[in-house]
Amino acid sequence: MPTQTEEFLRSHPRDIAADDVDLLKTAVERLAACAQSCTACADACLGEPDVAELVACVRLNLDCAEVCSAAERVLTRRTEPDAELHRGLLESVVLYTQACARECDRHGEHHEHCRLCADRCRLAEDASRQILLQIQEQQRQ
Amino acid sequence: MPTQTEEFLRSHPRDIAADDVDLLKTAVERLAACAQSCTACADACLGEPDVAELVACVRLNLDCAEVCSAAERVLTRRTEPDAELHRGLLESVVLYTQACARECDRHGEHHEHCRLCADRCRLAEDASRQILLQIQEQQRQ
Amino acid sequence: MPTQTEEFLRSHPRDIAADDVDLLKTAVERLAACAQSCTACADACLGEPDVAELVACVRLNLDCAEVCSAAERVLTRRTEPDAELHRGLLESVVLYTQACARECDRHGEHHEHCRLCADRCRLAEDASRQILLQIQEQQRQ
Amino acid sequence: MPTQTEEFLRSHPRDIAADDVDLLKTAVERLAACAQSCTACADACLGEPDVAELVACVRLNLDCAEVCSAAERVLTRRTEPDAELHRGLLESVVLYTQACARECDRHGEHHEHCRLCADRCRLAEDASRQILLQIQEQQRQ
Repeated sequence: MPTQTEEFLRSHPRDIAADDVDLLKTAVERLAACAQSCTACADACLGEPDVAELVACVRLNLDCAEVCSAAERVLTRRTEPDAELHRGLLESVVLYTQACARECDRHGEHHEHCRLCADRCRLAEDASRQILLQIQEQQRQ
Repeated sequence: MPTQTEEFLRSHPRDIAADDVDLLKTAVERLAACAQSCTACADACLGEPDVAELVACVRLNLDCAEVCSAAERVLTRRTEPDAELHRGLLESVVLYTQACARECDRHGEHHEHCRLCADRCRLAEDASRQILLQIQEQQRQ
Repeated sequence: MPTQTEEFLRSHPRDIAADDVDLLKTAVERLAACAQSCTACADACLGEPDVAELVACVRLNLDCAEVCSAAERVLTRRTEPDAELHRGLLESVVLYTQACARECDRHGEHHEHCRLCADRCRLAEDASRQILLQIQEQQRQ
Repeated sequence: MPTQTEEFLRSHPRDIAADDVDLLKTAVERLAACAQSCTACADACLGEPDVAELVACVRLNLDCAEVCSAAERVLTRRTEPDAELHRGLLESVVLYTQACARECDRHGEHHEHCRLCADRCRLAEDASRQILLQIQEQQRQ
């Protein structure tokens, strides 16, 4: 069954190749999941008794949520896309999700929300790298 | 299998009753889905040849996405929640999702993205009403 | 000299009455200032040694920033506006800015950022009430 | 008189050098102004009779608003900042503001909102480049 993201990609007036739908769908869904995880993890950190140890984690969570949300919306828009702009933004997503996963990993042993969040960050990073590879190949042609 | 939203709700340091997890999870997921649908529908409308007929739809889509995203993040945060603030924001979500569904319905016959978007708006409206009912009951006690 | 917000309101293809420009301009600018203040105050709270005492403040700051940003963008859009939708959203802004100012006031003696943020919240609340009054009057006619 | 942005930068518990306040303040204010301009220009384009010619402009406006808003909030947060992450995000801001200014310039002769928006994009680009230069210098030391 197609996911909601896939249905919308297919209902867009602009044609899209089948391979592109898969990559885009995965990226959009994982960016959304990562933004939600980071928002939830920042708040869960705030509720922990050792919040003072988690300040860097809250900060990175908030920033990473911001950047992933922006990228999710930009990739969702398919009218007049610009590969060069996507490239820059997704490279930024890779940096933020890496940094956030690294920080969350430091607290994963004590806090399940940090462990879950690190996983979502890595999934979003991986999907962003897939799109970056695709853009590179298309620019080489 | 618990969804990501459910896992995060359960990993939060603040305890939450089982019934509340279900309502909250559904609301957060549908608000996120509605925000994404509205972003996608606004962009698909922009790509249509009859974009001039769809101007009100684009505008409402953008506003509805904004309000649903804000509500999604507010509900995701569970540290020190305030039922009275949630009530006001969710009443606003009900108004926006209703208005957006109504406008999308007007174009649903010609544009699948409008039909899909109207459905997501109604699901988000319904989940918001469920939380509003729960808040009312809790305030009555 | 007109502010940027005023220039944009006047450059919009849709005509707008002079009184409305003033009210709208003030509301849009104060909502933007409040969203920025709340973002800055949340982060400054995170950097304080007594962060554990400021958890409710950070949470309210983040929520209030979200709601004010959404309202700022909704009011900025002037194509096909809907007074009824504005009313609901601005009532929510009033609730959030009040609650956030009240919480920031509790810490204002020790933290200048909380004192500054409470002021911006009250200015945004006041401007939102002005628009609400105007909507009420227009609906009475 | 210090602006609001400056007051908040100075009220933050983390010390900040005088030069950095100036650069940061300018960047945060211009990113906020650019995000607002892009939101307003997208909506004004939607209200124009020749909206079909302005579709690429609306799309770029929405994306540029997203990226500038994210960067504004990230730069506003001063607890545990990371120069490397800022660098990536600001390079993305440079690309988006350039592309948006270029597209708005194409319509500037007919639409004042496009002319105004192109100016704000260039101011945000310039301020972002200043911060990028500062990061480069600090990394060289």
